[in-house]
Amino acid sequence: MFGRGSFDQLDEILEPHRKAGAPMIFLVDHFFENKALVNRLPVRGKDKIVFADVTYEPKTSYVDKLANQLKDEFGTVSGIVGIGGGSAMDLAKAVSLMMNNPGSSADYQGWDLVKNPGVYKAGIPTLSGTGAEVSRTTVLTGPTKKLGMNSDFTPFDQIVLDPVLTQNAPVNQRFYTGMDCYIHCIESLQGTYLNEFSKSYGEKALQLCQQVFVHKKNWDDESDDQLMMASYAGGMSIAYSQVGIAHAVSYGLSYLLGTKHGIGNCIVFDKLEDYYPAGVVEFKKMVEKNKIEIPQHITKGLTDEQFDTMINVSMGMKPLWENALGKDWEKKMTREKLRGLYEKL
Amino acid sequence: MFGRGSFDQLDEILEPHRKAGAPMIFLVDHFFENKALVNRLPVRGKDKIVFADVTYEPKTSYVDKLANQLKDEFGTVSGIVGIGGGSAMDLAKAVSLMMNNPGSSADYQGWDLVKNPGVYKAGIPTLSGTGAEVSRTTVLTGPTKKLGMNSDFTPFDQIVLDPVLTQNAPVNQRFYTGMDCYIHCIESLQGTYLNEFSKSYGEKALQLCQQVFVHKKNWDDESDDQLMMASYAGGMSIAYSQVGIAHAVSYGLSYLLGTKHGIGNCIVFDKLEDYYPAGVVEFKKMVEKNKIEIPQHITKGLTDEQFDTMINVSMGMKPLWENALGKDWEKKMTREKLRGLYEKL
Repeated sequence: MFGRGSFDQLDEILEPHRKAGAPMIFLVDHFFENKALVNRLPVRGKDKIVFADVTYEPKTSYVDKLANQLKDEFGTVSGIVGIGGGSAMDLAKAVSLMMNNPGSSADYQGWDLVKNPGVYKAGIPTLSGTGAEVSRTTVLTGPTKKLGMNSDFTPFDQIVLDPVLTQNAPVNQRFYTGMDCYIHCIESLQGTYLNEFSKSYGEKALQLCQQVFVHKKNWDDESDDQLMMASYAGGMSIAYSQVGIAHAVSYGLSYLLGTKHGIGNCIVFDKLEDYYPAGVVEFKKMVEKNKIEIPQHITKGLTDEQFDTMINVSMGMKPLWENALGKDWEKKMTREKLRGLYEKL
Repeated sequence: MFGRGSFDQLDEILEPHRKAGAPMIFLVDHFFENKALVNRLPVRGKDKIVFADVTYEPKTSYVDKLANQLKDEFGTVSGIVGIGGGSAMDLAKAVSLMMNNPGSSADYQGWDLVKNPGVYKAGIPTLSGTGAEVSRTTVLTGPTKKLGMNSDFTPFDQIVLDPVLTQNAPVNQRFYTGMDCYIHCIESLQGTYLNEFSKSYGEKALQLCQQVFVHKKNWDDESDDQLMMASYAGGMSIAYSQVGIAHAVSYGLSYLLGTKHGIGNCIVFDKLEDYYPAGVVEFKKMVEKNKIEIPQHITKGLTDEQFDTMINVSMGMKPLWENALGKDWEKKMTREKLRGLYEKL
């Protein structure tokens, strides 16, 4: 469902999915605690609002804790409604799955390991750019890896795309999250993995990002509409494409330093002019036009051991490197070269 | 599912939806009778191949007959797999619904009248452009009207988009069906009903049509890929948009003369330079470049009564006229003016 004000239909949307005695759980980004949006939630009967702490990106331990609390309190629930940015989307998808699958979410980090469908789940993004509202993964940091629960059971049953919900997003945050979409498009469209499905969605998402961040003079309602569609199209394009160097390198940053995904991608992409020349020129133009400051020197003073940790995590993202540089990527991106890149950040 | 050769995964796709003792029904466009494609169908146990007569566009009586035959023979079925052009898609969706809903399909022509979900249904298009593979309607000619079964239960549970299946389509048929998508985009993008969801899908579909029919020198595999994505994106864009004058006028032709949808739209659009000037110029260029002949003088010799019938049917399509000409459309398109337009066809 897409439309300005469509959030007001949430009660009607959830109604057919309510099961007797089992509440709906609204898993809401803690950014909205004490905000007006909370009063608009269609809370009925035993329904519960849970504010999700998204200070850090979702961890498997946090997913397990949320799911176990719900099982202890209610036995089962009618559904999980995730409201917020990419972290809230991923948490909602993961908690829904863990309501119906035994063990820890860490057991399901990988591809097609999830055995049972989750409870009903709906996603309502309040930030545009991650594509998490439509993807078949949920990126989690586990005890041994940062990897999603990729499965046919992972996508939401329903998404409600109401651009009005994004209009009060902080400008910096909106930019970083929008750039998650932009960078994804540049990486996938220049990559070696692609088909016409992902190409056409990626091209559209890229064009919408350019419209919003390069061509338009001022931010207006249409900008919110367009960036929400960019995020959706970018998420759809992931189905048959792969990201590239910015993502591979920023995963290392996020693993070691906890750098969040959107800003981490920006910090890395800013230095990738050798790999994505036209994209980086345009990116710098967008940074300037939108008056954003990209953090610099964040790896200054790190030890050799710390650099090695980041390099190991990054080098482990083989499909991303192969997509960007081809089958012989290991000849093109040595550990030394990658160290040099991390030092520039 | 999108991809060249993805049709070969059909057995695997259907497997989880098979119910003990209930066959899968392959409802195949009669164009494929005795063609190689039939031997590639994953027919198991009591599964049955039914060749659908699509000489005429689907009638409610034909839908009812197919559904009743299946109920008589099998009681219930595991699913309906539609394979073919827009008519085969619409038939498969309608027959699936009628397996689980009482009465005649004519009872459900309208909006949200269908009460129960149908049996599992999968759509595999072999012609690109109608968008029927993704739409929430199935256009049927009933005893009193030509109108779809529009409902949340109407869309396919699964679509398999394999561009290889379209590569042997007759050139004229491919053009007319492709133009169904092109004309839809022109009508919806210039219309008064639109939001960013439908706009972004419509723009992408339009661009892909232009790529294939205007810009490319020769037809190649990529053309099949692109036109299949154009059809999909065009179908998605229908969600929040509406068609316009070409559709409103061609419904009259099809009601009176049985003119098929694709070619009917072309016959009408060819004469709409006053309403869609840029689109009609480009359309004529595509007709010439692709060496297509658009039939002329098809309304020559019709009686006043016959013209009146077409005018009545066309004038009944109020949302289409309103989308094209605004709320005061009746002042802009009089019966006399419409008669003049029909006489030009």
